Amino acid sequence: MRIGELSRRTGVSVPTIKYYVREGLLPAGRLTSPNQASYEESHVRRLRLIRALLDVGGLSVAGVREVIAAVDDPERPVHKMLGTAANLVTPRVEERADDPEGALAAARAAVADLITRRGWRAYPGAPAAEALAVALAALDDVGHGGFAEVLDDYADAAERVARTDLDYVARNVDRGELVESVVIGTVLGDAMFAALRRIAHIDASGRVFGAEADRAAPAS
Amino acid sequence: MRIGELSRRTGVSVPTIKYYVREGLLPAGRLTSPNQASYEESHVRRLRLIRALLDVGGLSVAGVREVIAAVDDPERPVHKMLGTAANLVTPRVEERADDPEGALAAARAAVADLITRRGWRAYPGAPAAEALAVALAALDDVGHGGFAEVLDDYADAAERVARTDLDYVARNVDRGELVESVVIGTVLGDAMFAALRRIAHIDASGRVFGAEADRAAPAS
Repeated sequence: MRIGELSRRTGVSVPTIKYYVREGLLPAGRLTSPNQASYEESHVRRLRLIRALLDVGGLSVAGVREVIAAVDDPERPVHKMLGTAANLVTPRVEERADDPEGALAAARAAVADLITRRGWRAYPGAPAAEALAVALAALDDVGHGGFAEVLDDYADAAERVARTDLDYVARNVDRGELVESVVIGTVLGDAMFAALRRIAHIDASGRVFGAEADRAAPAS
Repeated sequence: MRIGELSRRTGVSVPTIKYYVREGLLPAGRLTSPNQASYEESHVRRLRLIRALLDVGGLSVAGVREVIAAVDDPERPVHKMLGTAANLVTPRVEERADDPEGALAAARAAVADLITRRGWRAYPGAPAAEALAVALAALDDVGHGGFAEVLDDYADAAERVARTDLDYVARNVDRGELVESVVIGTVLGDAMFAALRRIAHIDASGRVFGAEADRAAPAS
């Protein structure tokens, strides 16, 4: 197909497509005349991946280049390709300049314990493990260090969701779409879960505090 | 205490404290002389709440004013106060100008069904319910409408986490700190869960795709 049709099919403008080719994110089309190139279905798929990484995953162009290098490396096994994609859509955690109370060091140790205790095939230095440690340290900073005790309840729930995600991927996703699906599923799955947790909070809060509220404000 | 001590105790600068007083977020201190005011422990707590709402919750000053009005309303029952706080830290979803394929309408219907099916005391128009519908519609847009079928697995996990959260609140949180704790716990709990889901993905992906990877790249 010509570049105009590629643009229509993907909703990406012609100048933007040319920019992605210049940046090395998208392979150039096959030249059919000095001024005209022809594009394939593989270009449609690649553009969808680039847009998902930029728009849904919030990656930079440099981050997209890194993911695509992983996708294009024929030597890279699938699970390493997935790991690269997952690491890249893990929100960057705020750097802590210092750790005067040792809260971050303690949180890192708690995360390493958790990974060992659950027999997870993950390494404590992974971006997600560091993000977890930073969240735990922030809870400690505001006087809720005790929340670390419920970590296993959260881990049970996360395992359940991760199993669901992988089952879905195994049943529904072609190899060629794996990375795209992982990126989209990771980011939109976060949004889904956060929304569901809030709805479940409304329900649980109504059950715990609702009766009291009815007593306090019977007319409402 | 004087304003200087209030500043030291909370890490909020004196000009910023004065700004919050002018904006109506923080009650003025009690005047002890024409140029000096005295502040109480309630000011320390209120400043911690304001900072949590601004920094951790990412609220605007107008949003903080809304939460504080809810906290200060003696007529407002606890669970409505919590609902206000939770709604305010629900990420604003991108507005969709149109819905040509009807994906958003279908997603809203799926969310309403879910709430009914689970007997949740929540209303379909809540911000969290709309955020869920938008995430489902976005999945449909990229060809993963089938992911809606795993909604109940996610809902089971969210219910478990919400129960854990409410248990923690009931055991550990004073009434005066409820809203602060809900805001902090909602936002940091999202971060914790997202990180755990990624770690669990790494584990699950290693189990599903790892063996194949070992065959493909035995030397790595």
